[in-house]
Amino acid sequence: MRGVVLHAPGDIRVEQREDPRIEQPTDAVLRLAATCVCGSDLWPYRGTDAVNEASPMGHEYVGIVEEVGSEVRDVKPGQFVVGSFFASDNTCQICRAGYQSRCVQAEPVGAIGTQADYARIPLADGTLVATPSMPDDDLVPSLLAASDVLGTGWFAAVAAGAGRGKTVAVVGDGAVGLLGVLAAEQLGAERIIAMSRHESRQKLALDFGATDVVTERGDEGVARIKDLTDGLGAHSVIEAVGTQESMMQAIRATRPGGHVGYVGVSHGVRLPGEELFFSGVHLHGGPAPVRRFLPELIELICSGQIDPGKVFDLTLPLEQAGEGYRAMDERRAVKTLLLP
Amino acid sequence: MRGVVLHAPGDIRVEQREDPRIEQPTDAVLRLAATCVCGSDLWPYRGTDAVNEASPMGHEYVGIVEEVGSEVRDVKPGQFVVGSFFASDNTCQICRAGYQSRCVQAEPVGAIGTQADYARIPLADGTLVATPSMPDDDLVPSLLAASDVLGTGWFAAVAAGAGRGKTVAVVGDGAVGLLGVLAAEQLGAERIIAMSRHESRQKLALDFGATDVVTERGDEGVARIKDLTDGLGAHSVIEAVGTQESMMQAIRATRPGGHVGYVGVSHGVRLPGEELFFSGVHLHGGPAPVRRFLPELIELICSGQIDPGKVFDLTLPLEQAGEGYRAMDERRAVKTLLLP
Repeated sequence: MRGVVLHAPGDIRVEQREDPRIEQPTDAVLRLAATCVCGSDLWPYRGTDAVNEASPMGHEYVGIVEEVGSEVRDVKPGQFVVGSFFASDNTCQICRAGYQSRCVQAEPVGAIGTQADYARIPLADGTLVATPSMPDDDLVPSLLAASDVLGTGWFAAVAAGAGRGKTVAVVGDGAVGLLGVLAAEQLGAERIIAMSRHESRQKLALDFGATDVVTERGDEGVARIKDLTDGLGAHSVIEAVGTQESMMQAIRATRPGGHVGYVGVSHGVRLPGEELFFSGVHLHGGPAPVRRFLPELIELICSGQIDPGKVFDLTLPLEQAGEGYRAMDERRAVKTLLLP
Repeated sequence: MRGVVLHAPGDIRVEQREDPRIEQPTDAVLRLAATCVCGSDLWPYRGTDAVNEASPMGHEYVGIVEEVGSEVRDVKPGQFVVGSFFASDNTCQICRAGYQSRCVQAEPVGAIGTQADYARIPLADGTLVATPSMPDDDLVPSLLAASDVLGTGWFAAVAAGAGRGKTVAVVGDGAVGLLGVLAAEQLGAERIIAMSRHESRQKLALDFGATDVVTERGDEGVARIKDLTDGLGAHSVIEAVGTQESMMQAIRATRPGGHVGYVGVSHGVRLPGEELFFSGVHLHGGPAPVRRFLPELIELICSGQIDPGKVFDLTLPLEQAGEGYRAMDERRAVKTLLLP
């Protein structure tokens, strides 16, 4: 089969890789219907994360079950399924508490690489959720978004305590931040402030339910959020970048007793204890337990209530993955969908 | 009046200070019934916090209202009252959300200094809570504990999500940590693991409801907590020290999706973003909004349901404040009560 492999920063190739097969009795093999490039794929692409060996890429996926292992009970060949970027048993204490991304048996799907024709998914029964019926093609981008960026934005909004009567600010205008806006809107937030200086992304944020746009960053951005909130800061702040600046911007934009939900993969962040202590905020985040939210998100998508697939503003055949990475790296595209 | 003043690290003096008087119409002046030395008073006493000028000391207090300002409505002369170490209006949005320690009008009582005969308390109606009647002398230590260490331990337990079915670990065996044990027990925790290597403190922890004692610290302490929790870590961890080691011990002892409630005043802490991100814990803490809990705590104390005053294992006249500080510094005493 074909699969995307990163050989060195900037060196993306579509190569022949071995066809996946059932290795464990709890595995499933999927024929992928769609996959995509994640903001976090840009960390190694840009060399921010070291690339020590040729690495299969991709951890977002939807597809049709080709084959299942002998112990798989719920997932069946022919079903259209959505999975998360961590395989999870969905039965351990950690999963049952809603933290499937930290399942005691968790396996990162990124190590398998779903920017490909096929993928082996471990712990199929715990990881995959089938759609009620075979979805129309126009729902596929939204279902693919649920696999990571929507689920991650949703988790961030929940972690940030977004809900009725709340003012939510969103730091980061990538796909996750934009879908954090959508999630906050769905969760009933009263006011949603998107922080973005890119016109096309501002427009998408407003489409998804943002009520205000703030173009300033850092301390100026914080000051603008305070201006908009009686000097107090937002109740809820979603952080979807992962840098020192974005984390401090999120913490400082939150009122005492408010919540920061952070999902940008942390890079070089060192949080100053004294400032955090006196901020009085709640801090929660990490790799999103997308599996927790998948049943609800699939229902919202299949019933047409949300259209998160709008974050894909570039669709390419898998063969052109390199251009898909470049377009995101240069911020010409918010998110690239790849069709095997 | 007499008051305790710190002139330089280790240099505690009981001096004549000016009698407090009503300065603002929202002030009250209290004749102090009892006051005490806080673990956080040891930071400047030890020189960890700089001492740039002679500083009045003390922020914990109970006493009888002597006089009130013209705008004070609820608090009346002759009442026995308990207050918190932050004065708060208890009416602003932040107070109403339960974060009185970060009230928009907050004033630190520590700047006034309650290790004294009298104290002026700002924002009296928002800050002070009267007991139902004049308490017996034997209740005074417990009511004094409510003013900070009990309220702080209680907040830490709430921030850590302590409750029914939960395993709670407590890092720090000072008065706050010990009263965190008591709070966890009152909140219904199933298992409470006190981390302490001091026999007298272990005994008090067991008295307050601890079910297990762990003497190891750092990575070994974390390993012991995991041993006791199916390898997962505690649901809830109370951090009551404020150092890098104690914060990392707390974060690492918490299971993914669990909660760290941290109330040790942060000193030189730098939290590594990557580790925090992948830990998946909730982090919440800061200066405790003791005022939120005072009505409930006073009721529990006055009805004899809890006896937090047991943390005072040394009682001295105010004149001997110096010895009170030394005893705590040398860990000969858990907490020193001072009688004006």
